[in-house]
Amino acid sequence: MYKAYQKLAVGIDIGGTNTKIGIINHRGEILSRACISTVGHETVEDFIEALYNALQPLIEEFESTGEITGIGIGAPNGNFYTGLIEYAPNLRWNGTIPLAKFVTERFGIPCSLTNDANAAALGELYYGAGRGMKHFLVITLGTGIGSGIVIDGKLIYGHDGYAGELGHTIIRYGGRKHWKTDLVGSLETYCSATGIAITAREMLKRTNQESLLRAIEPEKINSKYVYECAIKGDKLALKVFKYTGKLLGEALANFVMFSSPEAIILFGGVIKSGELLMKPTRKHMEKNLLPLFQNKVKLVFSELEGADSAILGAGSLVWEQSSEAFQVAI
Amino acid sequence: MYKAYQKLAVGIDIGGTNTKIGIINHRGEILSRACISTVGHETVEDFIEALYNALQPLIEEFESTGEITGIGIGAPNGNFYTGLIEYAPNLRWNGTIPLAKFVTERFGIPCSLTNDANAAALGELYYGAGRGMKHFLVITLGTGIGSGIVIDGKLIYGHDGYAGELGHTIIRYGGRKHWKTDLVGSLETYCSATGIAITAREMLKRTNQESLLRAIEPEKINSKYVYECAIKGDKLALKVFKYTGKLLGEALANFVMFSSPEAIILFGGVIKSGELLMKPTRKHMEKNLLPLFQNKVKLVFSELEGADSAILGAGSLVWEQSSEAFQVAI
Repeated sequence: MYKAYQKLAVGIDIGGTNTKIGIINHRGEILSRACISTVGHETVEDFIEALYNALQPLIEEFESTGEITGIGIGAPNGNFYTGLIEYAPNLRWNGTIPLAKFVTERFGIPCSLTNDANAAALGELYYGAGRGMKHFLVITLGTGIGSGIVIDGKLIYGHDGYAGELGHTIIRYGGRKHWKTDLVGSLETYCSATGIAITAREMLKRTNQESLLRAIEPEKINSKYVYECAIKGDKLALKVFKYTGKLLGEALANFVMFSSPEAIILFGGVIKSGELLMKPTRKHMEKNLLPLFQNKVKLVFSELEGADSAILGAGSLVWEQSSEAFQVAI
Repeated sequence: MYKAYQKLAVGIDIGGTNTKIGIINHRGEILSRACISTVGHETVEDFIEALYNALQPLIEEFESTGEITGIGIGAPNGNFYTGLIEYAPNLRWNGTIPLAKFVTERFGIPCSLTNDANAAALGELYYGAGRGMKHFLVITLGTGIGSGIVIDGKLIYGHDGYAGELGHTIIRYGGRKHWKTDLVGSLETYCSATGIAITAREMLKRTNQESLLRAIEPEKINSKYVYECAIKGDKLALKVFKYTGKLLGEALANFVMFSSPEAIILFGGVIKSGELLMKPTRKHMEKNLLPLFQNKVKLVFSELEGADSAILGAGSLVWEQSSEAFQVAI
């Protein structure tokens, strides 16, 4: 079959457990895929070799029909400016890793790196709910909370590459202590999947209210279980989502008054809770906004499939072709 | 005297009481000045006529030596995209005023409008502490709190022109009710000059502690008086600044984790309190930042003279010559 010669990119999503790889085109189609273990490689050098063995055959497969113009990687704590992964708590390779440099050198193809939430935001910008928008926020609600901020049609990085750590902004002074950062009262401690489970355990402890949540050991409660109890009509579980949405909505109102986005796109595992979370979030966001901002911001869920979106987002880094990104001479 | 033909701009700072006017050049020199009353003109049409009578002679004076390329105006609630002043609580003209259009038509010179805090940020970008920086925030601490946000060397406006209303972000849920907005616990209710006076009154009421602050009627206490008592060593007054700085620092930490600026520039009447405010602010900002952001952000006071800075900032709008600004065909 004849295929038009086209510009292609590699998108790589490095997660704590697995690394997903895809060859993408400008239309956001994933033409070929691979997956390797992240956790199974003791050193980053081993990981790069495994990546090469999985990806190089795909690259060769497309050599006659397209040009692979770059490799884009989304990874926890990935820094766009420096190409480094710095002290990522969820990866087993310690310290500072010059990942973009290693990948560029191994493949002979320019590689750009950013963090996972920024990659999600790029995915939304090019292929998701952010298409055609110049100003929006993406909030990823998973085990932790990440964020990517688009202003004037561009993802912002700040002076050092770390802009958009909204999960660590403080929403309750004197509140919950974060299990890793030690910061007190951050958004992540309340509105991540982890935070939802903590809220459920706290509520169970504080009252004697009957609840399906009491059917399992408190420490086994996770946000998925809270959701399952809530859709069965369990009052305490419903209250957990109301509370989570209240705090998330309040936080979003503050973010809106910072950059005045057209939309906020929620992404990640927690959004499976749907209107249970969305309804109180929207209500409390509006309530805490100046009238100037009210009833203007579209609060929506991502429409991209989780795994695909991360590959597409990482690959989109290549389309950005920014001169500011870390680049190694090849 | 021979003067080189140069590009000039008019900068106009519309305050609640007075309107200050200046002709500026690219080097940030104010070549000529005028001032008219804001409050003394019942209708905006009267105000425009007074502005014309004061400014037109200055424009004519420079006709032979320079080209006035535009008029830039900073005003409360001024919107860059629409050229409108919308419901400014401190101006006596009610409703929505198409100020940029009126000025453009009266003078036959393109006029751009923005709000006063954004004008201050532009002043810092071109002529103040923000020179050479691509990412910084300006927080104006006066009767109220305003802000201007510079990202990638550009002032951001958001999708509707209202980005940067950081004074209205909520820092204490369930806290103080704002006297105008009815929002509860906003930064402005605590850290503006008005907020400082409220804190002093609250502290006086809560304790019987001896204090110089008790020498005058509670309702006559303003932030200047609190400052005067504090530099005399009054313990309660000192506590007011410590508390204000704590809350301001916490809020600034959240702002840093949004856009990761190189600097935060504090501006406005309240900064006369100097280290009394700066010391606790810096301490609590650092304390609430992820380690990733610590000891990186320059927290500084503006070096521009109050009145000049507003004229220079408003005039700088003309240098921006953005296609996004509101423009009327002449």
